[in-house]
Amino acid sequence: MHSQSVSEITLAYIGGGSLNWAQVLMADLVHDRTVAGEIRLFDLNLEAAQRNAAIGNRLSEAHGLSIRYTASETIASALTGVDFVVVSILPGSFDDMAKDLELPEAEGIIQAVGDTVGPGGLVRAMRAIPAMAEIAEAIRKYAPKAYVCNLTNPMSVLTGALYAAFPDIRAWGECHEVTKLRHIIAWLANRAEGAIRYGFRDVQVNVLGINHFTWVDRAFVGGRDWLPDYLNFAAENRENGWRAKPLDPNDEFQRYFEDINRVKFDLASRFGIAAAAGDRHLAEFLPASWYLNRASEWGFGLTPVDWRRRDQAKRREDARLAETGNEVPPLRTVSEEALVGQIRALTRGETLVVNANMPNIGQMQGFAPGTVVETNVLFSGHGVRPIHAGRLPAAVEALVKPHAERQNTVLQAVLAGDGATLEGLFLSDPLVAPLGQDRAAKLFRAMVAATAARLPEKLRRLSA
Amino acid sequence: MHSQSVSEITLAYIGGGSLNWAQVLMADLVHDRTVAGEIRLFDLNLEAAQRNAAIGNRLSEAHGLSIRYTASETIASALTGVDFVVVSILPGSFDDMAKDLELPEAEGIIQAVGDTVGPGGLVRAMRAIPAMAEIAEAIRKYAPKAYVCNLTNPMSVLTGALYAAFPDIRAWGECHEVTKLRHIIAWLANRAEGAIRYGFRDVQVNVLGINHFTWVDRAFVGGRDWLPDYLNFAAENRENGWRAKPLDPNDEFQRYFEDINRVKFDLASRFGIAAAAGDRHLAEFLPASWYLNRASEWGFGLTPVDWRRRDQAKRREDARLAETGNEVPPLRTVSEEALVGQIRALTRGETLVVNANMPNIGQMQGFAPGTVVETNVLFSGHGVRPIHAGRLPAAVEALVKPHAERQNTVLQAVLAGDGATLEGLFLSDPLVAPLGQDRAAKLFRAMVAATAARLPEKLRRLSA
Amino acid sequence: MHSQSVSEITLAYIGGGSLNWAQVLMADLVHDRTVAGEIRLFDLNLEAAQRNAAIGNRLSEAHGLSIRYTASETIASALTGVDFVVVSILPGSFDDMAKDLELPEAEGIIQAVGDTVGPGGLVRAMRAIPAMAEIAEAIRKYAPKAYVCNLTNPMSVLTGALYAAFPDIRAWGECHEVTKLRHIIAWLANRAEGAIRYGFRDVQVNVLGINHFTWVDRAFVGGRDWLPDYLNFAAENRENGWRAKPLDPNDEFQRYFEDINRVKFDLASRFGIAAAAGDRHLAEFLPASWYLNRASEWGFGLTPVDWRRRDQAKRREDARLAETGNEVPPLRTVSEEALVGQIRALTRGETLVVNANMPNIGQMQGFAPGTVVETNVLFSGHGVRPIHAGRLPAAVEALVKPHAERQNTVLQAVLAGDGATLEGLFLSDPLVAPLGQDRAAKLFRAMVAATAARLPEKLRRLSA
Amino acid sequence: MHSQSVSEITLAYIGGGSLNWAQVLMADLVHDRTVAGEIRLFDLNLEAAQRNAAIGNRLSEAHGLSIRYTASETIASALTGVDFVVVSILPGSFDDMAKDLELPEAEGIIQAVGDTVGPGGLVRAMRAIPAMAEIAEAIRKYAPKAYVCNLTNPMSVLTGALYAAFPDIRAWGECHEVTKLRHIIAWLANRAEGAIRYGFRDVQVNVLGINHFTWVDRAFVGGRDWLPDYLNFAAENRENGWRAKPLDPNDEFQRYFEDINRVKFDLASRFGIAAAAGDRHLAEFLPASWYLNRASEWGFGLTPVDWRRRDQAKRREDARLAETGNEVPPLRTVSEEALVGQIRALTRGETLVVNANMPNIGQMQGFAPGTVVETNVLFSGHGVRPIHAGRLPAAVEALVKPHAERQNTVLQAVLAGDGATLEGLFLSDPLVAPLGQDRAAKLFRAMVAATAARLPEKLRRLSA
Repeated sequence: MHSQSVSEITLAYIGGGSLNWAQVLMADLVHDRTVAGEIRLFDLNLEAAQRNAAIGNRLSEAHGLSIRYTASETIASALTGVDFVVVSILPGSFDDMAKDLELPEAEGIIQAVGDTVGPGGLVRAMRAIPAMAEIAEAIRKYAPKAYVCNLTNPMSVLTGALYAAFPDIRAWGECHEVTKLRHIIAWLANRAEGAIRYGFRDVQVNVLGINHFTWVDRAFVGGRDWLPDYLNFAAENRENGWRAKPLDPNDEFQRYFEDINRVKFDLASRFGIAAAAGDRHLAEFLPASWYLNRASEWGFGLTPVDWRRRDQAKRREDARLAETGNEVPPLRTVSEEALVGQIRALTRGETLVVNANMPNIGQMQGFAPGTVVETNVLFSGHGVRPIHAGRLPAAVEALVKPHAERQNTVLQAVLAGDGATLEGLFLSDPLVAPLGQDRAAKLFRAMVAATAARLPEKLRRLSA
Repeated sequence: MHSQSVSEITLAYIGGGSLNWAQVLMADLVHDRTVAGEIRLFDLNLEAAQRNAAIGNRLSEAHGLSIRYTASETIASALTGVDFVVVSILPGSFDDMAKDLELPEAEGIIQAVGDTVGPGGLVRAMRAIPAMAEIAEAIRKYAPKAYVCNLTNPMSVLTGALYAAFPDIRAWGECHEVTKLRHIIAWLANRAEGAIRYGFRDVQVNVLGINHFTWVDRAFVGGRDWLPDYLNFAAENRENGWRAKPLDPNDEFQRYFEDINRVKFDLASRFGIAAAAGDRHLAEFLPASWYLNRASEWGFGLTPVDWRRRDQAKRREDARLAETGNEVPPLRTVSEEALVGQIRALTRGETLVVNANMPNIGQMQGFAPGTVVETNVLFSGHGVRPIHAGRLPAAVEALVKPHAERQNTVLQAVLAGDGATLEGLFLSDPLVAPLGQDRAAKLFRAMVAATAARLPEKLRRLSA
Repeated sequence: MHSQSVSEITLAYIGGGSLNWAQVLMADLVHDRTVAGEIRLFDLNLEAAQRNAAIGNRLSEAHGLSIRYTASETIASALTGVDFVVVSILPGSFDDMAKDLELPEAEGIIQAVGDTVGPGGLVRAMRAIPAMAEIAEAIRKYAPKAYVCNLTNPMSVLTGALYAAFPDIRAWGECHEVTKLRHIIAWLANRAEGAIRYGFRDVQVNVLGINHFTWVDRAFVGGRDWLPDYLNFAAENRENGWRAKPLDPNDEFQRYFEDINRVKFDLASRFGIAAAAGDRHLAEFLPASWYLNRASEWGFGLTPVDWRRRDQAKRREDARLAETGNEVPPLRTVSEEALVGQIRALTRGETLVVNANMPNIGQMQGFAPGTVVETNVLFSGHGVRPIHAGRLPAAVEALVKPHAERQNTVLQAVLAGDGATLEGLFLSDPLVAPLGQDRAAKLFRAMVAATAARLPEKLRRLSA
Repeated sequence: MHSQSVSEITLAYIGGGSLNWAQVLMADLVHDRTVAGEIRLFDLNLEAAQRNAAIGNRLSEAHGLSIRYTASETIASALTGVDFVVVSILPGSFDDMAKDLELPEAEGIIQAVGDTVGPGGLVRAMRAIPAMAEIAEAIRKYAPKAYVCNLTNPMSVLTGALYAAFPDIRAWGECHEVTKLRHIIAWLANRAEGAIRYGFRDVQVNVLGINHFTWVDRAFVGGRDWLPDYLNFAAENRENGWRAKPLDPNDEFQRYFEDINRVKFDLASRFGIAAAAGDRHLAEFLPASWYLNRASEWGFGLTPVDWRRRDQAKRREDARLAETGNEVPPLRTVSEEALVGQIRALTRGETLVVNANMPNIGQMQGFAPGTVVETNVLFSGHGVRPIHAGRLPAAVEALVKPHAERQNTVLQAVLAGDGATLEGLFLSDPLVAPLGQDRAAKLFRAMVAATAARLPEKLRRLSA
């Protein structure tokens, strides 16, 4: 209908001083060209928000968009009356994140990422949930009808925190990990066609699971389901792994973030269904004896915090140049993120089916109501509505569900300031359990002590 | 992708001697042009199926389609290995249907249609559920992976019967009543634009309820929600009703099937949400004192069985001509039915969101799991998947849910051959209850006796 | 163990100026002799509480009990730290109650009691729910661990209001209607034995339903189930009714409160299960055409408010004498109420199984969680715990469940101050529905206007 | 009422050649003296049943009971028309049980009992579930109204198997492990009284959990709750353990079956609630690093199969003497089992509250419906009815629930003959997971091969 026209919106970006996500959004809006209006950047670091606003406005002008970027001094002024909210915050500093990895490592516990499950994920959740609940309260007050896209990890518990604090919030958690599998399926279909006919967006996958531990039981493209082909392909490449383009051993990013799909292929071969996230995420949900304790053998990287620090410094320098340089900042290529497409669907009534994290209201059988699950969701003129995804195979459900239930419990315990329950959960965390209950209890207290300054009063007392 | 190409399918049409629905499908396939393959017509009246096959093949050839129509002598041969099944049967004869109306009428109970709820709906369900369960058993045996579209009323209990007999069936119940509201919304949006910019298919409605008692809480078109406009329009026209085109008093069909939306407008004004089906259907779910006892005052028709008999005779003559005439049968205009679009979506991976009747697996809050509800459903390469619709307002849920629960119970009781429970339900049926328990019990036994030949042994004994 | 000894408790009686219930409790405590401690009477009418305290202390001393009765000036001082709370209040005055009956009667709607369902029950709920929620808030603040026995009607919604306002409350709703059926069963068993061997307390009945609309599917006494015998007895006496002792036509109380079990017997004969409450209560839940419109024919009384007024005056005079007379007030015989037995079980660890009203947490299948249902409950050293009761037969569930769901919705709407929903519910109330939607809406507004002074601000505005 | 009288019953004992349980029942019936009638012993080993019948009849006569023991040649003749069924079978031989322990042990996996969870429990379930389902089918056919007491391990899945095969069965699983905690509580209360006033039956415990992994959150005796005292006692004795009577180091039985409560005390101290089963059972549900890998340090025994073999031989010899000796077999003292009390309650209407294993129908919050849970149950004239137990603390639920869900899945997979799912479950079994996925898969196949002769065809093929 109005597909050539432009939609006027207001959007508040919480964490708008971000050196990555905010700039991805700016570029995607340039490529899309259907959105106009105001984007308010709010960040605890006001200067970073101002810098991003300046960059955004330069891009906006240079490319002829009617989008105005502003930096908000308070969350209230950022949120008041907006149509959309994006939440992309960093729970704690890189120093906190380093402790999340190093203290467990000293006890022999290896984590590939440490931001979702395991000891690192739990402590990060303790830091982030209270902040997220405050943001939800502010949204309830200043923009109760806004659509809210959460980009922050640990995704499941933080999306859950938004709903716990404001049950009527229109929020979803957005993550791109599943695109990795969609790329492989498109590659398989193109190989069969002998031509590049399909991109990853053409692959309709039915997603089941929880964030970073997602599974796909149907992958439809070109008139048929490619899951059986994928399972065969996984079995063939289980021993040696495979990537569309070989890893570049000199590329540090690849070394720490990429994989050769061996974990995915091993899981697919054993369980008859496709695991859909990156290998380094998947490995953290499974017994350490399976993959985590032999990461290099399985071909996936462990992400060091040191790299994150160096990367951030580099990005900061790039941003400084983009803000102040004589030339218009270079335009990134369009990303694979779904956010701009979601805004279009909600604003213009387009019909977009894509995976997102939302509280279970029936979309995933076998999981308790309210558990934040990742399945397909319909974005359209009706808002954001989960689509029924079915049920995981029983042996896979036995892998996924205990993690989901733990996340539910962590969320409730952090909100209740119930440190005793958190300690109990920590002791039996699958990555922690091999330590024995005494060493585990000591590790928990050490980790809490290390990040105490970031914790609410009640949870801080634990470390005594 | 392949949008110009043609998809090869096989489809079994149970009730394929139909004088209406089968021919609608034939015409829609001509207009669509993307489907090829074999359509097998099965009917207890083999000649009618053969006649329809002949008509279909004439149309197919004349319009250059690669669709081949055949008449199957057994349901087994019709179903074996098909991709799609359509079920469109007549539960009992028009004489049975006449008794469903006349016996209650003799007790002062008026029914506008008598095929969904009330005494007529209940007895019709007793006839039809066993037949439907047999069809589901055959599908389990001969085409367990087929997509199954049920077009038969009473829609809710019969779609439920399919799932009761074969829980893994991929079935949905298809009904076009909601299009009536979508037309009104499109009319309102066009009026505001001062031009005809939207058709009913452009109107995205969020549907909640049960078949023939459906409600819409959001109606998005042209970038915004039109429900508030509709509620205002309903309040303005509540006294006198309204139709886009005035009723033609000489048109018998209109007299018996159409309405002036007064029931819809009265309900919208009282409950703050749009009722979405035809007035004559809606009225049957509400206290007789509200609309049914004063149908002409409220401007909707009561459908006489006599008209159905005459109409059938006329259609039969038309079909005879279409089969045997010298000229190719005339091509009907494209219908408003969703079936061909559904086939396209399932076959080609198009994304279609449309209302359909399916067992509740969470798509409608507040209703028990397994209750057949009508909400939006996603048809795509993933199959048929309910979309979360939310919840009815509390006062409306109090109107709808007891009917839904009765339907659940009727279904279970018929399958169990439990006549005592059916009698108990009949006594307290809202249209029957004013009779008092004794007269109600007599009426039930008379109605069962009148249709005993069509009932399974166990239910027949009741009439003693 | 300690069965000879005495347990020290504190108990707050909210509504402690009561002219009936409080005095029943006083007498039962004398008969029981195992309870000592303090009973604090709180009433909006402080004098009435003081009068009851004086009576109680006279009884206590005369019979050598170590129970001290006091009148509390505030609810806070009554509740602080008590072990038990009894709530027995009168929602509104007898004038309000008279309007609840008379306004519907003017429209032809007959109610036998008018305090549970129907138009009177709904308006009474609007008055009482906010008061009950306030009491629960006070209990949360001053006696969060207390056991709370609610004696106030409408029992289901008011017990629900306690839980809605304080979800961790240890409350149940107490009603003696089911004893009526237990007496009949004991009579049957004694008749068979040819001797009086069983009292009503020896009859173990399995109770299912909601308050005043309860059913019994098993009645065990003397080593076997007597339900089949009861069903036969009901069938034999369905035409003429039956009572153990004939009604005394000169006894006004009997005329207004008693029945000849004809409703119970008719229901038992039709549905194959025993209805368990008094006929005048049962009748209000069923279509008016069944019993209510012909109460005298069915042999049950309609309770006039005028009688309640006269009875209250008489009781007030009796109480005055009991407080001030020279002689110790006469000791009533032990009642059939369960309260003192419940206190014993909770205090001393005795094991008592008796029916009570509590939110459904699984004890009654087929009803939504949280619905206040009446089933057996275990009182013991573990507190108050529902016992699994099973499920009503389908045709009976269809009678009971819509009332239960309405009650849930009324409760939520009153708490939310949502008058529009209450009006919607009123329109479709089964006793109201025959009026038609317009007359029903007028009646609702008239009833709300008549009691507006007792309603919270938000609900009062309705009547405009 | 009839408490002096005798109740006539018929009871079928499946596994009636048992050398232990059957004889416990015989003795308890002598002590009780209220039961008369016929007890039919059925066993695959007919001679053993005949031997037990002879012993039973000698006891019966010697003690003046009117109980007649018979040996049935078929399960049909044993079951036809009985009031009660007891199921106490041995799934596989001691050689099978030895393999269940030895094969995992060769991989470093220690099991204390190996009959409930872990690799041994899973393989034992594969053997036993099909047998149990057959027994339930026979009960459906020959004694559908009988009360059925299952005494066989693994209790949870086997009780589940009875319900899966015959959903209307009136069955419960009976286990005495919880009495261990009740004895400790009675000891504490007696210590405080300075006299032996309470036995374990006086202690009312509220039980939550699954069989062999049960917890108690309230322990009422003598007018108050002793849980806080127990928690203090546990903290005091956590380091060194405690028993009412010290272990006799020369008693082999004690060495293999008894414990010093250190596991119970450690769990109580960490989680603030009492674990209620024997330490050797509890340990198997927890990470091996906690207790199982250091059993002797924690003071509990590992039960060797060799001991069971020797014990069985001894019992067989005792039984031979009891059958054929000149003197009447000696009467055992009354046991702590609940079975005879349950029979009394069901037959005579006594009110017995005791823990039992039944499918969750709401009695335990937080666990899926149908999961077999262990909570208190009411035995009375109404039959067997679960009592609402509440919910486990969150950190404990995280320990218990994954085991419960695994048991649900094992049951479904064995019934479906789905070996792939069983292998998947085995890989991630908490005791197995440390092996890594490849060694785990090999172990599974070896264990299946070792017991293949006892498995249904479909599950046997796995071992290829």
